[in-house]
Amino acid sequence: MTTDTQSPTTTKGQRYLARVFVSLKPTVNDPEGATVANALGSLGFEGVERVRSGRYFEVTLFASDEHTASTSVDQMCSRLLANPVIETYSLTVEEAD
Amino acid sequence: MTTDTQSPTTTKGQRYLARVFVSLKPTVNDPEGATVANALGSLGFEGVERVRSGRYFEVTLFASDEHTASTSVDQMCSRLLANPVIETYSLTVEEAD
Repeated sequence: MTTDTQSPTTTKGQRYLARVFVSLKPTVNDPEGATVANALGSLGFEGVERVRSGRYFEVTLFASDEHTASTSVDQMCSRLLANPVIETYSLTVEEAD
Repeated sequence: MTTDTQSPTTTKGQRYLARVFVSLKPTVNDPEGATVANALGSLGFEGVERVRSGRYFEVTLFASDEHTASTSVDQMCSRLLANPVIETYSLTVEEAD
């Protein structure tokens, strides 16, 4: 009797953790960031010049290698996670446990 | 006539850029992340195991040194930027131009 003895790693590739940082382009108004900056001042924090708000995603995915994972997540960003008209994004990829 | 000739750097300290990453604790439900993961599957991205959503802030502030800036931003996180009951946060601080 032959059964599938391949481990998940063999069938799906290595597991990677991608961290995606999405922020508004510098020229785009950021009322949430401005509100946070004001609130920090009200709480007594001095020296705050500016706050910009954004979004953060952790994507766990299987891929054959790090380059493939990075390319895939980059496409996810441009197609879904970020709005390229008003936002920029950056990402890091590392092997996950 | 003596005027204030001190530069902003001298009076306010050095400018630092802090990046703050706020994410939900692992045990907390994340419907936004689950929705994004489903949407990625619908778009044809294979191998996505999990997506966790969070928030990202860039705080520009003046401080006398990097340690002071880091301590200050850490307090901002615990008092305003993150909800310590359901969220965790991490931060990096670097000198800004």
